[in-house]
Amino acid sequence: MDQRQLRKLLEQVKSGEVEVGAALDRMRNLPFEDLGFAKLDHHRALRHGMPEVVFGKGKTAEQVAKLAEHLLSESRNILITRADPAMAESVRERVPDAEYFPLSGAMRVWRDKTVTGKGTIAVISAGTSDIPVAEEAKVTAEVMGNRVDAIFDIGVAGIHRLMSNRDRITAARVVVVCAGMEGALPSVVGGLVSAPVIAVPTSVGYGASFNGLAALLGMLNSCASNVTVVNIDNGFGAAYVASLINRL
Amino acid sequence: MDQRQLRKLLEQVKSGEVEVGAALDRMRNLPFEDLGFAKLDHHRALRHGMPEVVFGKGKTAEQVAKLAEHLLSESRNILITRADPAMAESVRERVPDAEYFPLSGAMRVWRDKTVTGKGTIAVISAGTSDIPVAEEAKVTAEVMGNRVDAIFDIGVAGIHRLMSNRDRITAARVVVVCAGMEGALPSVVGGLVSAPVIAVPTSVGYGASFNGLAALLGMLNSCASNVTVVNIDNGFGAAYVASLINRL
Amino acid sequence: MDQRQLRKLLEQVKSGEVEVGAALDRMRNLPFEDLGFAKLDHHRALRHGMPEVVFGKGKTAEQVAKLAEHLLSESRNILITRADPAMAESVRERVPDAEYFPLSGAMRVWRDKTVTGKGTIAVISAGTSDIPVAEEAKVTAEVMGNRVDAIFDIGVAGIHRLMSNRDRITAARVVVVCAGMEGALPSVVGGLVSAPVIAVPTSVGYGASFNGLAALLGMLNSCASNVTVVNIDNGFGAAYVASLINRL
Amino acid sequence: MDQRQLRKLLEQVKSGEVEVGAALDRMRNLPFEDLGFAKLDHHRALRHGMPEVVFGKGKTAEQVAKLAEHLLSESRNILITRADPAMAESVRERVPDAEYFPLSGAMRVWRDKTVTGKGTIAVISAGTSDIPVAEEAKVTAEVMGNRVDAIFDIGVAGIHRLMSNRDRITAARVVVVCAGMEGALPSVVGGLVSAPVIAVPTSVGYGASFNGLAALLGMLNSCASNVTVVNIDNGFGAAYVASLINRL
Amino acid sequence: MDQRQLRKLLEQVKSGEVEVGAALDRMRNLPFEDLGFAKLDHHRALRHGMPEVVFGKGKTAEQVAKLAEHLLSESRNILITRADPAMAESVRERVPDAEYFPLSGAMRVWRDKTVTGKGTIAVISAGTSDIPVAEEAKVTAEVMGNRVDAIFDIGVAGIHRLMSNRDRITAARVVVVCAGMEGALPSVVGGLVSAPVIAVPTSVGYGASFNGLAALLGMLNSCASNVTVVNIDNGFGAAYVASLINRL
Amino acid sequence: MDQRQLRKLLEQVKSGEVEVGAALDRMRNLPFEDLGFAKLDHHRALRHGMPEVVFGKGKTAEQVAKLAEHLLSESRNILITRADPAMAESVRERVPDAEYFPLSGAMRVWRDKTVTGKGTIAVISAGTSDIPVAEEAKVTAEVMGNRVDAIFDIGVAGIHRLMSNRDRITAARVVVVCAGMEGALPSVVGGLVSAPVIAVPTSVGYGASFNGLAALLGMLNSCASNVTVVNIDNGFGAAYVASLINRL
Amino acid sequence: MDQRQLRKLLEQVKSGEVEVGAALDRMRNLPFEDLGFAKLDHHRALRHGMPEVVFGKGKTAEQVAKLAEHLLSESRNILITRADPAMAESVRERVPDAEYFPLSGAMRVWRDKTVTGKGTIAVISAGTSDIPVAEEAKVTAEVMGNRVDAIFDIGVAGIHRLMSNRDRITAARVVVVCAGMEGALPSVVGGLVSAPVIAVPTSVGYGASFNGLAALLGMLNSCASNVTVVNIDNGFGAAYVASLINRL
Amino acid sequence: MDQRQLRKLLEQVKSGEVEVGAALDRMRNLPFEDLGFAKLDHHRALRHGMPEVVFGKGKTAEQVAKLAEHLLSESRNILITRADPAMAESVRERVPDAEYFPLSGAMRVWRDKTVTGKGTIAVISAGTSDIPVAEEAKVTAEVMGNRVDAIFDIGVAGIHRLMSNRDRITAARVVVVCAGMEGALPSVVGGLVSAPVIAVPTSVGYGASFNGLAALLGMLNSCASNVTVVNIDNGFGAAYVASLINRL
Repeated sequence: MDQRQLRKLLEQVKSGEVEVGAALDRMRNLPFEDLGFAKLDHHRALRHGMPEVVFGKGKTAEQVAKLAEHLLSESRNILITRADPAMAESVRERVPDAEYFPLSGAMRVWRDKTVTGKGTIAVISAGTSDIPVAEEAKVTAEVMGNRVDAIFDIGVAGIHRLMSNRDRITAARVVVVCAGMEGALPSVVGGLVSAPVIAVPTSVGYGASFNGLAALLGMLNSCASNVTVVNIDNGFGAAYVASLINRL
Repeated sequence: MDQRQLRKLLEQVKSGEVEVGAALDRMRNLPFEDLGFAKLDHHRALRHGMPEVVFGKGKTAEQVAKLAEHLLSESRNILITRADPAMAESVRERVPDAEYFPLSGAMRVWRDKTVTGKGTIAVISAGTSDIPVAEEAKVTAEVMGNRVDAIFDIGVAGIHRLMSNRDRITAARVVVVCAGMEGALPSVVGGLVSAPVIAVPTSVGYGASFNGLAALLGMLNSCASNVTVVNIDNGFGAAYVASLINRL
Repeated sequence: MDQRQLRKLLEQVKSGEVEVGAALDRMRNLPFEDLGFAKLDHHRALRHGMPEVVFGKGKTAEQVAKLAEHLLSESRNILITRADPAMAESVRERVPDAEYFPLSGAMRVWRDKTVTGKGTIAVISAGTSDIPVAEEAKVTAEVMGNRVDAIFDIGVAGIHRLMSNRDRITAARVVVVCAGMEGALPSVVGGLVSAPVIAVPTSVGYGASFNGLAALLGMLNSCASNVTVVNIDNGFGAAYVASLINRL
Repeated sequence: MDQRQLRKLLEQVKSGEVEVGAALDRMRNLPFEDLGFAKLDHHRALRHGMPEVVFGKGKTAEQVAKLAEHLLSESRNILITRADPAMAESVRERVPDAEYFPLSGAMRVWRDKTVTGKGTIAVISAGTSDIPVAEEAKVTAEVMGNRVDAIFDIGVAGIHRLMSNRDRITAARVVVVCAGMEGALPSVVGGLVSAPVIAVPTSVGYGASFNGLAALLGMLNSCASNVTVVNIDNGFGAAYVASLINRL
Repeated sequence: MDQRQLRKLLEQVKSGEVEVGAALDRMRNLPFEDLGFAKLDHHRALRHGMPEVVFGKGKTAEQVAKLAEHLLSESRNILITRADPAMAESVRERVPDAEYFPLSGAMRVWRDKTVTGKGTIAVISAGTSDIPVAEEAKVTAEVMGNRVDAIFDIGVAGIHRLMSNRDRITAARVVVVCAGMEGALPSVVGGLVSAPVIAVPTSVGYGASFNGLAALLGMLNSCASNVTVVNIDNGFGAAYVASLINRL
Repeated sequence: MDQRQLRKLLEQVKSGEVEVGAALDRMRNLPFEDLGFAKLDHHRALRHGMPEVVFGKGKTAEQVAKLAEHLLSESRNILITRADPAMAESVRERVPDAEYFPLSGAMRVWRDKTVTGKGTIAVISAGTSDIPVAEEAKVTAEVMGNRVDAIFDIGVAGIHRLMSNRDRITAARVVVVCAGMEGALPSVVGGLVSAPVIAVPTSVGYGASFNGLAALLGMLNSCASNVTVVNIDNGFGAAYVASLINRL
Repeated sequence: MDQRQLRKLLEQVKSGEVEVGAALDRMRNLPFEDLGFAKLDHHRALRHGMPEVVFGKGKTAEQVAKLAEHLLSESRNILITRADPAMAESVRERVPDAEYFPLSGAMRVWRDKTVTGKGTIAVISAGTSDIPVAEEAKVTAEVMGNRVDAIFDIGVAGIHRLMSNRDRITAARVVVVCAGMEGALPSVVGGLVSAPVIAVPTSVGYGASFNGLAALLGMLNSCASNVTVVNIDNGFGAAYVASLINRL
Repeated sequence: MDQRQLRKLLEQVKSGEVEVGAALDRMRNLPFEDLGFAKLDHHRALRHGMPEVVFGKGKTAEQVAKLAEHLLSESRNILITRADPAMAESVRERVPDAEYFPLSGAMRVWRDKTVTGKGTIAVISAGTSDIPVAEEAKVTAEVMGNRVDAIFDIGVAGIHRLMSNRDRITAARVVVVCAGMEGALPSVVGGLVSAPVIAVPTSVGYGASFNGLAALLGMLNSCASNVTVVNIDNGFGAAYVASLINRL
């Protein structure tokens, strides 16, 4: 029962066609959504004001391509994450202006380039191996309407590289920092800026990095108070939250 | 060597009193901070625009009290976290207007009640046992200049309590959610609002909660994209980042 | 707005006092609960048909006692778990017929002894040290209206003790098995009976038992298909689910 | 020595053909099973009243096919879990009416469609990636004689989808909930219904999901009291226990 | 129903007093133990030929003392492990010849000093802090009828101390090695002797020893093929198995 | 400097050719082994009285074949573990009487079939999937001169199968038990027999079995005192120790 | 702005071309590095005096080859770690004198063979399977200007092999010890020498070695005080630090 | 048999009193140490050239005091670690010039202040809470004959503090860095200096620091190549190795 049906029911109550008690009974058993109360819930993308996102992993190339096409009927921008080359090819056959970023597997259709973010989002990566995760963050933040300043390969063991880029980093309204191994970069960056820092541990490393666990724990224990953390390799999530913050 | 000294050196170069080569040498060996480049680093509180914070744990009551007194000479508001009753008493002898919150051990001097945050920060806790952590977040957010809407004891197993408070939650500009046990509340809240959600796992629980690990992992794996996470029981950190966001 | 208010609104619609459009608007913004849809949610105890339960740990003796008294105004039976002796004394001052079980810290007021469970619940413990957890399960199952057959101290290293009690175990409609150390008993019991077996790992053990982790993992990997698992030391939870099943 | 042999021995004792002492000796050394005491143990399927189940993984296609054929000589329904496509083909050559479910690798021969379960089993999955595990649960529950209501893709971050299906869920006699990532769905479902909820953590996720560990811990720490848990990805086990409960 | 009763039943069959069918029915429902088949199971101590053992931890001083007294009515030697000083005092009041070993909390009554072990059991400890565990092993092995050669404080970082004692170690028929920290001693000892080596990880250490986990993992991964492992701090278990082996 | 050289030195001392002081100096700096003190160490196989063993994994087929050929020049029996089919083929080209066991990858040359073990070693496996590990144990124990009684596929969930084989198990002098999943079988077997039980956790299972960790922890926490444990999947190690014990 | 530019600025100040205030402003905003203060930071290889190192893993063969060629324009020696055969081939096409070590994937150009280390670095490995890691350490130490004494395959279970090599080990100025499984060798070596010992856990092993975790924990808990530890399989890092120490 | 006895034996050989063959036999069976070969092993302190060290924890105040007195009869300097105040008092009664450092529990007698280290050891701590561990390192390094430059409280979140002290840090010959929480400081320091850096994770932190595990993993995964790691809180061990290096 949707809004229209509820309106009809109320009109039947008004006209006396349906008794108050019977109306109450029918309302009590309605699925939540149909009452319209949940409408905002339903259209999550609309509510958050973000383009629709497809998580590619675990779907077939065909499914992803169809989904992309379908979403583009309602939305000018879409983002596909964790897409493999076969998916990319399949999408491009139907959507020729889709961009594919093979390092991260990110894919986007970016037709509406309106900038809705109020400042710049800095996306920083510690090492060259962290770039795939940082790329996912950059691609996401851009398609969600942000100016992005990508500063790659500035690790804590060469602190001067970080220092040389201090002006760019402090100019950002939100900072996303991707780092594997010991995951120390967000703490150092957090100490340099007053903006919120979103830390993304990456699964880069070997041995006692335990696929990103070392970096994750490091970031959760950051001695800088302006750092929050997302899941390992979750460049998308970090950029998503950064976009929300950058619109405020 | 501070700015003044550097100016003097440059004037000596100008007057010919110091040779260019000698000036170069002296500059090369200066401590970083003295050049003034690091000044912003030095005054971290100033830079972030936050009151000074003292982490009470591991200090003596005497140390905490002296530190509080000292900081109050430069700052109207201060926050002390993880203070035990002895510290509280010791601080109050010197600073009678200090408030103590025994559940969380938070303590604050809140003389400047100017509101600098642009919206409301909702602080939500899942169960009554999570209240100490939520209280730390609330006390922190308030003393940092935010309006706080505290909504305690709304767990996911009684989803109606959450639903009844949906309006208050969606009205917030940033949401802090404290939850122990399975840590599911931030995911549900994240799905209801479009604001950034900062999740605080608490060490509440027993057995396979492993002192907050279960809640932490749950939050890191949240299926809601607008959730970031801080350390277990770190109500302070969550409120600190929420304050930064709320000022934007 | 509760049922009564909703009825009034509908009557106002009927009488023409309130326009359909205005009624729709008011309904759309109602807190969920007030519509009565969530009523069952609100009264969880009623819905599950169980007595109210108080989790004692982390509350003061005073709080527990007041809560107990309050709940008894609406319910004939109540259960308090993880109560320490001070809580027990405090409760008994107000509620003299409250029983206290010091091994497990369980406490109950059992005024309505109607049996609602259709069969017997067998509560089995592997070793004498598992008895506190088993006692919590037994006390819970009884106050929730079940006949309980408690069979303590039958471990897998003395399989004959288990065999000697096979008739009692197979006679049960649901079986709760509490075991620490290697947690092997539920698998063996699961192979003997066709009833659902609810396994409770206990934190009994030392060294590589890691406070019940070994037992927990053992039970999750049970080779018997009729075994499900609850949290470490959660005798209450096991008995609660067993009670739900026994009413079917 | 089976029942028949034991009877014969007793008759020999009766007729004096065998001395009491000699009979005692022979009985003392009999294998347990031959006395008939263990008969119920032997025919586990019979005892639990379930069709025979073959765990495909680790067997050859040939072995699985032969086993299937053999079991069908005594049973009208059989279930094969974790079968790869080669096994499926091999089984179908011999048993053309075997159904294969490639997502989960489940396979069944469902000749006797008698419904023995008294109510409906709801099988719920949180995300599309959890469907393979949910499918295994659904296929299992059906072949074991239950009406199944499958409700897929209702995660906690879109709580309205759950709410829209509340009637279907509360109508079930037992609920199986499959969820990966943070594993929060069983807690929310547990709060909505009074039926027993069997939670299945899935290995869906990445990074800090640690192949299902995050979901597993979340479910074990559920704040809803009517939740029990099975092993990661164990859709079969959950449906098996649900079937036992549904027959009560 | 024990052997005697079974004999009586058979005699009743023989005399025609009981029908064969009725006898079969009664036998089918007998508890396992009563048939005498499980008798050996019942008297585990007898079967293993070991003195009775009481695990003190978690019992009251009174319980332990009574249990000790009771067991001494049937057995000349008994062992109590993990006894605190209060238990020790309580036992001694009733059993004046009980010895108490405060380092390990072991306690024994050793009235029958017959040596049943065929060779010597060497009990080795790596550091002085491992001595409590080694003492438990030594006390256990002695009261179970073995000659024990205790060689304490020979760690791998001072390999010469080990070498100096090589003759004593190689003379043993079974070797028990207790070591905390890195747990390397059993590997080195295993390479020196051809006897079975039973390794006992101890919880000695700090930091990354994780209460004995480091030692446990080290021992399980021993490059010496003649090493098996028991639980952390389980000096008793190691000595128990060593005693079984030494009797062969 | 070997024995011969040392003898020569002593003779030079005797003849006065070398001074006592100079002889002392030279001896002080000798490599340990050359003095002959370490001779027993050097010939480990000889010392333990076991055939030589080659760990195949990580070597080339060529290396394994050459090594096998070389060892056969000094030993009649050899054992190769974890050999893949290519290694097997390569070895057989040079050593046609080598047997290969593809389930476990074990390979042996068994020319001297003298039985040196005094009793039987029972090798038990819990499920069909544990057979590869059990096979490695069986092949090892046989080639090391033991009579082996292999009893496969008797899990704890069908306790009657265990009971039916009790006579065979209790007849063994040492028992090796291989089990994955919950690893409960060694505890049950340990309670039935008085022989030492060597438990081998296998990596069989999925989800929360964590590649054998669940079984390993279960076995380390066994409530049966006669159980010791070796590394996950280490069938060889268990049989090796069992062989040592069986020779005593 | 580099040194040259800074000099020019100072000269402009001197000549009056630039005002002191303006000069201060420009200096304050300079990137850190350009001031020359960070020069040492920039040229890390120069500063540490080490040849440049390329971490091959995750790069393409083409990238590695180009990078190698580029670095050789400034440095006579270079090291590539974790290179696969394709990289090796690609590098050799451009740099024919590059050596490739397939076991470890190490690759080096070693044109300047000057020895800068003051003593010998002993590189020890416990088993043959640890040789790849030890090889990486050896190749690294050599190309960094050290005499290396490689002593492979001396495990703790055959202590005599270690003893036979004691002179060579004690002759070293720094010792690198690579060991998997229980990781006990560094403790034993640490007890024999007074030089610093750098322990490298290797991922060699199976089951409870957990890919090197057991060895890592063992080494961190070493009872020898002269042992420090690097990451699992990090032969390069150990040799790098050993080289730094050997130059002192 | 010690050196003296061996000399006597050789003299008996020389005099013909003992036959060469008999001498060989006696030597072959000598305990290793007695031959004098192990002398260096025996006197570990002497060999490493370090003062004797007593690990206080787990000993009685009396034992520690006696041990201290005893060691001072042979050594001018001694170090006691992890001493509680009672031990300190007890030692001082006998050794009035013993210094006690209550933060770390370190205690030393420092009579011989000869500096044997060739350069300075910098001991750095990240936060005030890490000072106890840093103090242990400082006290150890000093009593072992080193000049120590202690630089406390320079965390990575305030990078300027580190930069201001860069000259002092780069002047050191070895650097010890103590850090808890995320353990990032050693990586940053490692990037600034070319000296070996010994990282000490501390157990400072809460929640996901897991008592130092986060810092430990962070340090093991350091992106700076000149970092090695010791156990959590092991300030002593770090200083010990630093002392060895500083003497080279």
